[in-house]
Amino acid sequence: MLPKAILFDTFGTLVDWRGSVSAALAEIGVRHGVAADWLAITDAWRGRYRPSLDAVRRGETPFRLLDDLHRDAILALLPEYGAQALAPVADELIKIWHRLTPWPDSAPGLRRLRTRYVTGPLSNGHVALLVALSRHAGFTWDMVFGSDVSGHFKPDHETYLGACRLLGLAPADVMLAASHNEDLAVARGLGLQTAFIARPMEYGAPGERAKPAAAWTHSVGSVEELAETLEA
Amino acid sequence: MLPKAILFDTFGTLVDWRGSVSAALAEIGVRHGVAADWLAITDAWRGRYRPSLDAVRRGETPFRLLDDLHRDAILALLPEYGAQALAPVADELIKIWHRLTPWPDSAPGLRRLRTRYVTGPLSNGHVALLVALSRHAGFTWDMVFGSDVSGHFKPDHETYLGACRLLGLAPADVMLAASHNEDLAVARGLGLQTAFIARPMEYGAPGERAKPAAAWTHSVGSVEELAETLEA
Repeated sequence: MLPKAILFDTFGTLVDWRGSVSAALAEIGVRHGVAADWLAITDAWRGRYRPSLDAVRRGETPFRLLDDLHRDAILALLPEYGAQALAPVADELIKIWHRLTPWPDSAPGLRRLRTRYVTGPLSNGHVALLVALSRHAGFTWDMVFGSDVSGHFKPDHETYLGACRLLGLAPADVMLAASHNEDLAVARGLGLQTAFIARPMEYGAPGERAKPAAAWTHSVGSVEELAETLEA
Repeated sequence: MLPKAILFDTFGTLVDWRGSVSAALAEIGVRHGVAADWLAITDAWRGRYRPSLDAVRRGETPFRLLDDLHRDAILALLPEYGAQALAPVADELIKIWHRLTPWPDSAPGLRRLRTRYVTGPLSNGHVALLVALSRHAGFTWDMVFGSDVSGHFKPDHETYLGACRLLGLAPADVMLAASHNEDLAVARGLGLQTAFIARPMEYGAPGERAKPAAAWTHSVGSVEELAETLEA
């Protein structure tokens, strides 16, 4: 049964956060005369992502925008990597996440899918970030499910179910498309359809994470292949 | 100062609810062998709109989707207008509001404005209704501010301020465009910029309601004229 709506994980699934963030850090570094291992900083920055979300999810800290979690993380990391001189431009650094480069198939694939399906990002990014990112990357949506719409981060169930409720659809009529098996596993547990999109270069080199860990509804290599599969 | 984002009232401002609803009721009436004064029913249906929202706004009833308010209203009205035979298809009747016809300038004007400004509907319709309506009418948005995003109906302040907050913008950087002076007055009181769009045929004949009642930031005759004015 075809879905009526398709929700997309964003970081990693649609955009190349690792390549974009490291390149932007390098550019800002040059501008401020700071040299550092920008790829290592990028990986460490992303590494703090899940623990910072989990602290919110466990109720240890109130809900906060991803910008604020990103700011705390980068301010803690800069001295560790000899890049403390960038602390005064932390606002500029966190805005890097508002203009990540899409994988080449993302915008054309989303355009095709939207001709037939209701589409939206389901992301831990907030609405302002997703709006800026989508305009930068050329993504057009029917609705934007930022974390500040539900007040929750994935994999809290409220994010998936809240999006279904706002669309007026049963979970079985909604598909989550993501490059992360854990995200899909939670969505499947709640009754959504699932599409795994392999992004072997998300972490810089292909690994086990880039392979489907279960028999998802569909497993594809690009958003365009998903459009093909779903006859859009 | 130009705004960064423009929010649009929907019913009346962008779409012709009166012409669309009465025509759709007539079509459904023919199909079910029911003759009635469809324009009178349409006006009475819309007439119950504000009181039903106000009951929610005063806290007399919990927040409900516009579909549900529409259902209660039409089921009460059908017998009054000799159209009780349509009660079994109430679901079909309320869905009329999901596919209203846009004014001819709405879609092209919105398209132009979105090239330069972040845009979104700010409506008492819910997300599912606005998504369906936008796809039907050819409107494309950066974000959809349905009433179920804030859990409030206009003119509750939370609707206007919640949209600004989700966009990460100060009210002064956001403009409300609407054909209703009352809506604009509340937005102005909260610090938003304002654009009056005259819709003389919204209620079937030009009247005082179709004239700007104050010196709004801009007063125009169409969405395309607004795009021209804002250099989009």
